[in-house]
Amino acid sequence: MPSKIECIHIVTKMGDRVAGKLGSEIAAWLAARGVSVQVQEHRQDSGGSAVQEPCRPDMALVLGGDGTLLSVARKFMPTGIPLLGINVGHLGFLAKADVGDWPARLEKLLELGLDVDERLALHCEVLREGQIVHQSAAINDVVVSRGPMARLIRLRLFCEGELVAALRADGVIVSSPTGSTAYAISAGGPLIHPALEVMGVTAICAFMGNLRSLVIPADLTMDILVEEVWGDVFLTEDGQQGQRLVAGDLVRVTKAKQGLRLVHLDGAGYFTTLQDKGFTR
Amino acid sequence: MPSKIECIHIVTKMGDRVAGKLGSEIAAWLAARGVSVQVQEHRQDSGGSAVQEPCRPDMALVLGGDGTLLSVARKFMPTGIPLLGINVGHLGFLAKADVGDWPARLEKLLELGLDVDERLALHCEVLREGQIVHQSAAINDVVVSRGPMARLIRLRLFCEGELVAALRADGVIVSSPTGSTAYAISAGGPLIHPALEVMGVTAICAFMGNLRSLVIPADLTMDILVEEVWGDVFLTEDGQQGQRLVAGDLVRVTKAKQGLRLVHLDGAGYFTTLQDKGFTR
Amino acid sequence: MPSKIECIHIVTKMGDRVAGKLGSEIAAWLAARGVSVQVQEHRQDSGGSAVQEPCRPDMALVLGGDGTLLSVARKFMPTGIPLLGINVGHLGFLAKADVGDWPARLEKLLELGLDVDERLALHCEVLREGQIVHQSAAINDVVVSRGPMARLIRLRLFCEGELVAALRADGVIVSSPTGSTAYAISAGGPLIHPALEVMGVTAICAFMGNLRSLVIPADLTMDILVEEVWGDVFLTEDGQQGQRLVAGDLVRVTKAKQGLRLVHLDGAGYFTTLQDKGFTR
Amino acid sequence: MPSKIECIHIVTKMGDRVAGKLGSEIAAWLAARGVSVQVQEHRQDSGGSAVQEPCRPDMALVLGGDGTLLSVARKFMPTGIPLLGINVGHLGFLAKADVGDWPARLEKLLELGLDVDERLALHCEVLREGQIVHQSAAINDVVVSRGPMARLIRLRLFCEGELVAALRADGVIVSSPTGSTAYAISAGGPLIHPALEVMGVTAICAFMGNLRSLVIPADLTMDILVEEVWGDVFLTEDGQQGQRLVAGDLVRVTKAKQGLRLVHLDGAGYFTTLQDKGFTR
Repeated sequence: MPSKIECIHIVTKMGDRVAGKLGSEIAAWLAARGVSVQVQEHRQDSGGSAVQEPCRPDMALVLGGDGTLLSVARKFMPTGIPLLGINVGHLGFLAKADVGDWPARLEKLLELGLDVDERLALHCEVLREGQIVHQSAAINDVVVSRGPMARLIRLRLFCEGELVAALRADGVIVSSPTGSTAYAISAGGPLIHPALEVMGVTAICAFMGNLRSLVIPADLTMDILVEEVWGDVFLTEDGQQGQRLVAGDLVRVTKAKQGLRLVHLDGAGYFTTLQDKGFTR
Repeated sequence: MPSKIECIHIVTKMGDRVAGKLGSEIAAWLAARGVSVQVQEHRQDSGGSAVQEPCRPDMALVLGGDGTLLSVARKFMPTGIPLLGINVGHLGFLAKADVGDWPARLEKLLELGLDVDERLALHCEVLREGQIVHQSAAINDVVVSRGPMARLIRLRLFCEGELVAALRADGVIVSSPTGSTAYAISAGGPLIHPALEVMGVTAICAFMGNLRSLVIPADLTMDILVEEVWGDVFLTEDGQQGQRLVAGDLVRVTKAKQGLRLVHLDGAGYFTTLQDKGFTR
Repeated sequence: MPSKIECIHIVTKMGDRVAGKLGSEIAAWLAARGVSVQVQEHRQDSGGSAVQEPCRPDMALVLGGDGTLLSVARKFMPTGIPLLGINVGHLGFLAKADVGDWPARLEKLLELGLDVDERLALHCEVLREGQIVHQSAAINDVVVSRGPMARLIRLRLFCEGELVAALRADGVIVSSPTGSTAYAISAGGPLIHPALEVMGVTAICAFMGNLRSLVIPADLTMDILVEEVWGDVFLTEDGQQGQRLVAGDLVRVTKAKQGLRLVHLDGAGYFTTLQDKGFTR
Repeated sequence: MPSKIECIHIVTKMGDRVAGKLGSEIAAWLAARGVSVQVQEHRQDSGGSAVQEPCRPDMALVLGGDGTLLSVARKFMPTGIPLLGINVGHLGFLAKADVGDWPARLEKLLELGLDVDERLALHCEVLREGQIVHQSAAINDVVVSRGPMARLIRLRLFCEGELVAALRADGVIVSSPTGSTAYAISAGGPLIHPALEVMGVTAICAFMGNLRSLVIPADLTMDILVEEVWGDVFLTEDGQQGQRLVAGDLVRVTKAKQGLRLVHLDGAGYFTTLQDKGFTR
């Protein structure tokens, strides 16, 4: 059942004037309609709690593109506050409202309340000598890959403890359906429909093609064991946060308990968006 | 709950002496244990009912490889009788019991009764001028592709009526998870875990890569519209049955109501089988 | 050294009014400048000699796109008469002059004479029980591939008699550099610079990736042995001419003695054309 | 014309006992036949001149695998001294003699003198604000690619000054034919026959496939312009030497004046070696 909206948080793309100006405009528009609102410029590196307001936001508006939404969502995910992306640039997969139609969109939400679409997110932890030394969520993908030196690394993949492949590759990508249009597709992975509860596993430049791409149920556990002794190996989540790994490290990827919560909007279908973005023709 | 076994049908690979001899051997073994049994050599082209026995089989044993099991399964699917493949050749994805271990396997089934694993199958129908002119089931894949002349054909793909792509390609493959290790992987599709309720859609040699591979929920309807006027276009199900199409034909692929029913066996896991077959290394 | 132009043959795209009208216009323009000229509509299936004129043409103008030029070139190649394609549609790889700039182009050719660019072409012959049962030239590619039934066929490839691969695939493409932007690229082959004296060998949907793509010197002999007994196998040259093959047939591909002769034009470079056509971005 | 052998340098794989022992054995064998010989263990990081002997070696024996030969060859290339690899492990592309057959091989070389096969090598220089800040040779490949953070970088490729592509990718590989079986094939490049004077250009995980693979004449100049401002970009030659690049850097790849010189051996053909190594089947 749609819920009523009384408090909205607005995040604007870092260093973007258009987004900043739009933020003020929308804030005024909302305030005039009795909604508590607070505007904040997004800062990727800001620690602490994501939201510091007098009221708990019923939703957050993110003014930017899919990149900004991704980055904001990484911070907001633990709060469970649903996000609505308003695209300052091109049509996005995540940021679906346009600069032009926000008043109509918000009008409707204030009137009817909001519904939430939940998208699968990933949880990732690094086990070193039996200890969890790092953990994080990822909306698009968890990537284990080589460092700056262009040489293959050795990884072993296990699914529920069963060996999947002994990889010699640039690395491997474990992606959510949302992330299938990000790094994974460049590495040869399939487009995965966002309604599916699956993970994509795609090798990056595997030698002799010893693994290509794999789609598995999201409730299975995917383990990546770092076997490389000579070269550098790194973990990256959503292309935004890096971490050096050492031989013996086990990167465990599971479905995150809390997914990405997006305010539901009627609009362009999935396949239409794929075409608009150039993924299919 | 496992069900008791009183009547077993045995199908042996067409023209295969080893399978034929094994069939007699198993029949004798079963008869000695009070099971009604009838042995039949598989014939791909035999029409009519798949099973003509005094008793209704609780299961069918298929002596051959994955190819034979696939062909037998296409005939048996409407009956709902579960199949158990005993591999005369190499380890199979579908035919999981080995020549060597059948007595132990059958002993256990007779004692404990059988469980059934159900695998998603596809239903396919051809609409021409509003009429269904052909329909069939497929266990691996439904393929719409060019004829003998090596030139691209034009197809339009729709999912739930929404345009997915206007293809210029050799064709397109819609596959079940079971079929992901068949034609689809040669065309660049991903390996899809057999527990998933999804369809894979993979273009064959698409010009300019205007579609690669797509994984969608199996309860969506995938339509393939034949737009090619000049060249020959054909429909093939499971690589075993061909059909000429004409411009304007719509090939509609959905999830089959009745899936492929396989007798459950404990044994090598999915990923181990992938490796044994050389799909991962 | 550029040679003087006294007689020009004009071929117009079959059934294309724009090309037909342009042909008359150019013919009048040329006649007014004292050049003997004859206009003919292209017919793919016309046998006999390609040119039946009072004078031997110094060159032929082809009004159409790359497809028409390809088809015309297949007929003209034995004559050695150089071709100049005037594009009625988009920028082509072969047909480089535009509808708009033909007067300037021809003016310059009449004044300065013509230079010829020679592009590598392929020769193909089918050996059956020691006899040549078919031979032909190909400008783009020689393709051996499956028939309408979507199942893999078995081929053996040899280079200078040395085994290259025992293929299970939809087929194989042997292409010239010119043909690298045709079927070969859809099957995963590389773009090959037109100045190179090489052949590209690209498998079509090879099972287990048992061959991908290979670039070899054009003076080597590539043999394709048909090993398939069950399925149909076909030979296609330039996507325009088909031929059924039988088990045991050997398709031998070598460099053609006579290449494709094109009238040299200054103009857009190779990489610019690749981008304009969408092959690189 | 084969040249007589009077002085041989032996290099053994770093830290490899088998290679070290074999080195002593061969040295004694050669000395007994009146050949001047000096054994040295390979050290990747040793600077200075590659050879410090009383006599100038007519050839160098490299005891190790293709990796060792590659590393030794990088140091020896400027000297022009031809190399002969004796494989301690598996059959190699470069190291063609086996542990078992060295006496017969050397006997024949001492008797008949040696012939040299020359393989194309690459030259690479980095231009920064008009200055050459780095230059090096590469036998396999020159790679410009992203650092540890898994995000696409922006590069612009030019061939002879003409724009080829504006890449968003993990990077790009420019490879020799020798290097086509190294990194390039994992990234989707073709196998390139070693007799060809060409360079392969293969994008690594290009977004939207905006370049796949390209084969160009080796006498063309390939320029890679670093446009990435945010992320790290690195240059690697032969997977052995790294270098950080900055926005605006131009990496220029040309054919090296001095190629890789290998002592000619009769033996397994190119395609047989491809199969033995698993590149074709």
